[in-house]
Amino acid sequence: MKRKVTLKQIAKELDVSISTVSKSLRDSPEISEDTRQKVQAFAKLYNYKPNLIALSLKNKKTKTIGIIIPEIVHHFFATVISGIEHVANEHGYNVIVTLSDESFDKEVINMEMLANGSIDGFIMSLSKETQHKKDFHHIAEVINQGMPVVMFDRVTSDILCDKVIIDDNAAAFDAVQSLINNDFNKIALITTVDYVSVGKLRTDGYIKALRTNDRKVDESLILRIEDIDNCEEAIEKMMQEVKPDAVFAVNELFAVTAIKAANKLGQKVPEDVSVIGFTDGIISKYSSPSITTVSQNGIKMGGKAAKMLIDRLESEEEDEELYRTEVIETHLVVRESTPTL
Amino acid sequence: MKRKVTLKQIAKELDVSISTVSKSLRDSPEISEDTRQKVQAFAKLYNYKPNLIALSLKNKKTKTIGIIIPEIVHHFFATVISGIEHVANEHGYNVIVTLSDESFDKEVINMEMLANGSIDGFIMSLSKETQHKKDFHHIAEVINQGMPVVMFDRVTSDILCDKVIIDDNAAAFDAVQSLINNDFNKIALITTVDYVSVGKLRTDGYIKALRTNDRKVDESLILRIEDIDNCEEAIEKMMQEVKPDAVFAVNELFAVTAIKAANKLGQKVPEDVSVIGFTDGIISKYSSPSITTVSQNGIKMGGKAAKMLIDRLESEEEDEELYRTEVIETHLVVRESTPTL
Repeated sequence: MKRKVTLKQIAKELDVSISTVSKSLRDSPEISEDTRQKVQAFAKLYNYKPNLIALSLKNKKTKTIGIIIPEIVHHFFATVISGIEHVANEHGYNVIVTLSDESFDKEVINMEMLANGSIDGFIMSLSKETQHKKDFHHIAEVINQGMPVVMFDRVTSDILCDKVIIDDNAAAFDAVQSLINNDFNKIALITTVDYVSVGKLRTDGYIKALRTNDRKVDESLILRIEDIDNCEEAIEKMMQEVKPDAVFAVNELFAVTAIKAANKLGQKVPEDVSVIGFTDGIISKYSSPSITTVSQNGIKMGGKAAKMLIDRLESEEEDEELYRTEVIETHLVVRESTPTL
Repeated sequence: MKRKVTLKQIAKELDVSISTVSKSLRDSPEISEDTRQKVQAFAKLYNYKPNLIALSLKNKKTKTIGIIIPEIVHHFFATVISGIEHVANEHGYNVIVTLSDESFDKEVINMEMLANGSIDGFIMSLSKETQHKKDFHHIAEVINQGMPVVMFDRVTSDILCDKVIIDDNAAAFDAVQSLINNDFNKIALITTVDYVSVGKLRTDGYIKALRTNDRKVDESLILRIEDIDNCEEAIEKMMQEVKPDAVFAVNELFAVTAIKAANKLGQKVPEDVSVIGFTDGIISKYSSPSITTVSQNGIKMGGKAAKMLIDRLESEEEDEELYRTEVIETHLVVRESTPTL
């Protein structure tokens, strides 16, 4: 039985990265002549076929949309997929989902796999590692070959394509402004490390709200979490040491963990400390107290992304290069973890 | 641009069901001669190509696994996918996910799409509608053509293939038995309608535990929910009318809704009423009180399913027809919604 050799196998065999293999096969000037020749010779020997999008595009439409998301155990991405599915199905399109697991290599591999004739276009949100590396050649390549890509939520200005985002900066600003309006004085921020684009934008919105109101930005009130799965200890430590009267968390896991930490420290929510989260997921809805959040409206974001992709796929004008960035409205869903704001 | 005609379009054009089109193209004796000829003529006219699995199997391996799950906004299925991904990646396989949205037609369409040369084999859990209709011809067809299928969680005895399940009956029995051992007298059951196979098995386990302990089965204590998204009212009504001292819920959404209903009625959990759920998801972990649950171990279930599929794909013996059903161990995760059991 003849087995197709994969990008991963070539990389392993030659002891280079997947990115190097991918770039070598595209004659990228970033790769040394020596490496390029070695990779190309190996690929030829094992009959490796890079994707032939341009060719396949001329011949057929699959009526299938490929989605690449960073992780699946995450309610926001699940709601975006629901939104994409709904609009795609209405227009007669099927949907295929793949996961990058926040890994650059997996993002490249999945893109390669799907671009190989299975789908007509991509809807994707960047993996953390891709954002960190700032290596987007795989996406540029797919677009260059004529396959449309729509990015949502975690996007980059380095790639020209259609995008759907929320205004993370403004949404965070509004949430923190409403806390300031209600006379909260020590507003803590629980956020991600800065290379996650949405975390950075939400952090900027928090800082802007403080500055606009002539408040001092106190670094001891800002907690940047690297490992989301092990955030309990850091959050509890911050809550104990600085005793904030309000917490703005950039996702709902940080928000619910802040509530658990408050309970453990004998602080009542919302009486002693109010908590606002981000992403209107099931944790926010079912936790006790239920959590006031900035609703991202994943369903709407997914629906909009699907519509933009389908419009582009079905457009007759091939040279239309006016990419759009749609901004989805957010709003604060007030629940039990804050007073009425 | 030449567009491929789809099963759905043929069905719409001829005003018959997708199942009828699919069966007609396979010369199924279930379909009248007249309909069969009409469908086949139409498909021929529009150059419809049914999947050519047998042919593609001889030619290449995609090293890709196709997953079909009923819904994505569901923590259990998300953890199963994580488990599949992990083991698949270890063995050099990629994973593609599609959703049936609990619809029979979408399950058939997705199967058709993926079987068309994109993947080497399927891992799937049946949609509610497929279980209700008991129409499994699309799965039988794929298996007949030599493409292996592994079913998990929602399986059927009507199809011979590898399966991964938990012993839903025994798990429910054990949970209810532990409530009986702790002297609970009025144990309510919140379950699904009977055609959902796992709901039926968990209901049977509840009844068996009562009977084994010479307890009467009181139908007023058994609540069968049809529409999971609108279960609040029915659960609150039952809790108010029969005032159970314990509730066994067949999923975590029913469990957390029972806790909310108890709070609303002024009943304290676990002091006035204890609650046990099923599925160890994020709601159970983060709700207050956190919920005692039967852990399904989705990661392990997914990993086992992937291993079984890969073993079969890489087995040299083509005529090996000894299908296995693996049973994943469950255990009770005791949290705050019950006393120590």
